[in-house]
Amino acid sequence: MPDCIFCDIVAGRSPAREVYSDENVLGFLDIRPVMRGHTLLVPRTHSRGLVDLAPEAGGQLFAAGQKVAGAMRHAVGADGVNLLVNDGRAAMQTVFHTHLHVVPRHNGDKLSFAKGLVVRRDPNPDETAELIRGALAR
Amino acid sequence: MPDCIFCDIVAGRSPAREVYSDENVLGFLDIRPVMRGHTLLVPRTHSRGLVDLAPEAGGQLFAAGQKVAGAMRHAVGADGVNLLVNDGRAAMQTVFHTHLHVVPRHNGDKLSFAKGLVVRRDPNPDETAELIRGALAR
Ligand SMILES: [Zn+2]
Ligand SMILES: [Zn+2]
Repeated sequence: MPDCIFCDIVAGRSPAREVYSDENVLGFLDIRPVMRGHTLLVPRTHSRGLVDLAPEAGGQLFAAGQKVAGAMRHAVGADGVNLLVNDGRAAMQTVFHTHLHVVPRHNGDKLSFAKGLVVRRDPNPDETAELIRGALAR
Repeated sequence: MPDCIFCDIVAGRSPAREVYSDENVLGFLDIRPVMRGHTLLVPRTHSRGLVDLAPEAGGQLFAAGQKVAGAMRHAVGADGVNLLVNDGRAAMQTVFHTHLHVVPRHNGDKLSFAKGLVVRRDPNPDETAELIRGALAR
């Protein structure tokens, strides 16, 4: 996959601070951490996002996320963890090789991960639910 | 599991607007959506968080997340999707039954999902990486 920085890291052509490695997934520090220990987990096989990520690869990615999340308490004293996938430019994906963010959290930290999220009232949630069920049934 | 609202929903004892159902995972609209279509996916078997979630159950949860994410374009015109797990109170988990948020996103939406995230400089990322590797090796 040309011009994919994460494929370059997986192939060893670009440097990264590796923290996790298994047969299917590689993990390394985000070069722009929102918190100390902020890690990115990437499937070794290229996919652009959730749609072209094989379900098995998704499961492997999430399992790696569970392991790294569990290690964050000992590693950086985390009290909690956010796992996050940004899928698509509208969701603020910036590197188009599927990746899972593991963000350590601390009691009382200033990280406003969900702050600024306004709860919007859905005028017709029954219709919304029907639309999603319908799209899933396509 | 007493006093778990998501177990109550899974068991049919509490109402919810279901949007997704398979053998292992149930999906329903978040009653406090940050965006129309905001869905929660929960394993049918109770776990408190990522640590006591069986890896297979994690894979099933993420696979359901991929499916629901893929349906959001047709369902609510989503241009992208965020998948998010808040694990632990410090990470803003409020219901202690593991769940995956599926949040539809739209080009130019006002949802400041990562806004407010300040990039912090890590004075010693090599040490940080070593700490995580060490914790994973425990
Ligand atoms: Zn790639
Ligand atoms: Zn429960």
